[in-house]
Amino acid sequence: MNRLCSIASLAALALAAPLSAQEADKPEYPSPGEIVKQATPEEWLAIAPSDLLVMDLAPDAAGEARRVIIQLMPEPFSQGWIRNIRKLAAAHWWDGTSINRVQDNYVVQWGDASEKKALPEGLETVPESEYVTPIADDMVINGMATHIISQASNDKYFPSNGKDPYTNETSFMTGWPFGFADNGVSPVHCYAAVGVGRNLSPDTGSGAELYTVIGHAPRHLDRNIAVVGRVIEGIEHLSSLPRGKGDLGFYEDEGKRVPISSIRLASALPTADQPRFEYLNTDGDTFAKYADARANRRDPFFNLPAGGADICNIPVPVRRVKAE
Amino acid sequence: MNRLCSIASLAALALAAPLSAQEADKPEYPSPGEIVKQATPEEWLAIAPSDLLVMDLAPDAAGEARRVIIQLMPEPFSQGWIRNIRKLAAAHWWDGTSINRVQDNYVVQWGDASEKKALPEGLETVPESEYVTPIADDMVINGMATHIISQASNDKYFPSNGKDPYTNETSFMTGWPFGFADNGVSPVHCYAAVGVGRNLSPDTGSGAELYTVIGHAPRHLDRNIAVVGRVIEGIEHLSSLPRGKGDLGFYEDEGKRVPISSIRLASALPTADQPRFEYLNTDGDTFAKYADARANRRDPFFNLPAGGADICNIPVPVRRVKAE
Repeated sequence: MNRLCSIASLAALALAAPLSAQEADKPEYPSPGEIVKQATPEEWLAIAPSDLLVMDLAPDAAGEARRVIIQLMPEPFSQGWIRNIRKLAAAHWWDGTSINRVQDNYVVQWGDASEKKALPEGLETVPESEYVTPIADDMVINGMATHIISQASNDKYFPSNGKDPYTNETSFMTGWPFGFADNGVSPVHCYAAVGVGRNLSPDTGSGAELYTVIGHAPRHLDRNIAVVGRVIEGIEHLSSLPRGKGDLGFYEDEGKRVPISSIRLASALPTADQPRFEYLNTDGDTFAKYADARANRRDPFFNLPAGGADICNIPVPVRRVKAE
Repeated sequence: MNRLCSIASLAALALAAPLSAQEADKPEYPSPGEIVKQATPEEWLAIAPSDLLVMDLAPDAAGEARRVIIQLMPEPFSQGWIRNIRKLAAAHWWDGTSINRVQDNYVVQWGDASEKKALPEGLETVPESEYVTPIADDMVINGMATHIISQASNDKYFPSNGKDPYTNETSFMTGWPFGFADNGVSPVHCYAAVGVGRNLSPDTGSGAELYTVIGHAPRHLDRNIAVVGRVIEGIEHLSSLPRGKGDLGFYEDEGKRVPISSIRLASALPTADQPRFEYLNTDGDTFAKYADARANRRDPFFNLPAGGADICNIPVPVRRVKAE
């Protein structure tokens, strides 16, 4: 690259060389994004529409639609809360509720601010024990044996090399980040994770009050609160909202609340309207190369590979695809 | 707490019990915020106005003022770039420039989008070696000996207990988070860190193009790009901006750029207008208790202390104080 290039080019290159420049240079080491583009079609796995929540907010001030899409966690994790969430969506319970809290570098939270909306009948009271899923030798999750968690010497699955301050180790299974502790496996509060607001213990929340992470991963919440999914599209409609000025980022001014028009399972929408997404198989070769490249940046912008990464700095690639 | 409390109370309690409830319960373990409130006046150390950058953006759509305050790093870190930044501020160089890039879960970046603004004379070309500061046995930083970095068994300074994936260890000195590698000490890219945009190596950036972190800590940038400071007030004016729709989050529509009215050192403002801030001494007993509480949440909301924390999950407390 020419150091005399314009300031605009400097700006564009400031934190990462744009693809055009990288391709021109034909670097020996492709960027993480370039690696993902090289994945085979078979490495992209479909997300079932029944595992997607579609949240439509009221249009923004310019009249633009705001849609947020959440992927729910696969079995066997957090399923009690997720059953409740499916019931709440089926009952159209969130329609007319609102986003009530936006706390900088922490969370955006939504639910019923009126205090008066009755919950649907039949919601489960989920025990705290469900925050952690015991590890069994023969445990199979979505077709993948958890024996991988014993392969601690394999960088492919353990990019932090045992250096996670919160758990014994972190790794990926079935497209999701997890922490592994002595007593079991737990989902991790990375950026965009969706969790279940709750009262003090032993309450674990119903799932009616949800939040998503919009800042540095609040990993101290892991194993203390249920993670039920993650935002896979449209998080900018939440993360760029004005911060609330009340305690914990709640909007003091009710007029600041953002109305929720509806929340539905994608599978409840007409087939033609169902959004389709795929995630990169976290057990595949491409994900291994991608995770390694995230942990050891060698593409042209970088001088020094870090030698590791924390699990939340390796977001699982998800892409939107055309309807079938 | 009464589990039958209203939904609104549930919302307020959803992620952390409010102080009023905690005080009523007189918990054995105060929250990190409560610990900080117990610090003695002597533990709060003044930040010199000459180490503060005051950035005024154009008022928002509602006519509200938007001021962002950045604390510059202390000696001996990143001082070449910081000398340039002082010259740029003195020359009023940023006045009339703009915020040009907002990339979700990454950075907000500002500088001259016109490509035509000449830089002041006399800016330094800082070598890449300045990304890392060698550790000397007798090294003293702002009056604090760095012998503390050899106290690896001391939780007070090493909350991650050696489990940082990016460096040998992380710790705090003079109110800032650092990573310690074999070849020296480097500032860390935590949320709100301010860094210097640059071109490909060997360019290191002048300091005219700056960014701040608005997402999960991009620690892979550590030792690859200069950290020169951190936003200590008003980051919501940056983190809540609409995300850019161009590559890397640049605004494709020039009309979305946010004009910068001025950037000044606080010491260049009239004395009565100079904002005053203090940070909690990271070598004091209160900070040690605070860091321990962040790493081992035992306040009423939490069931399970994590047993550790990553350095960016322990933000150094900073507070605004009245002018003298």
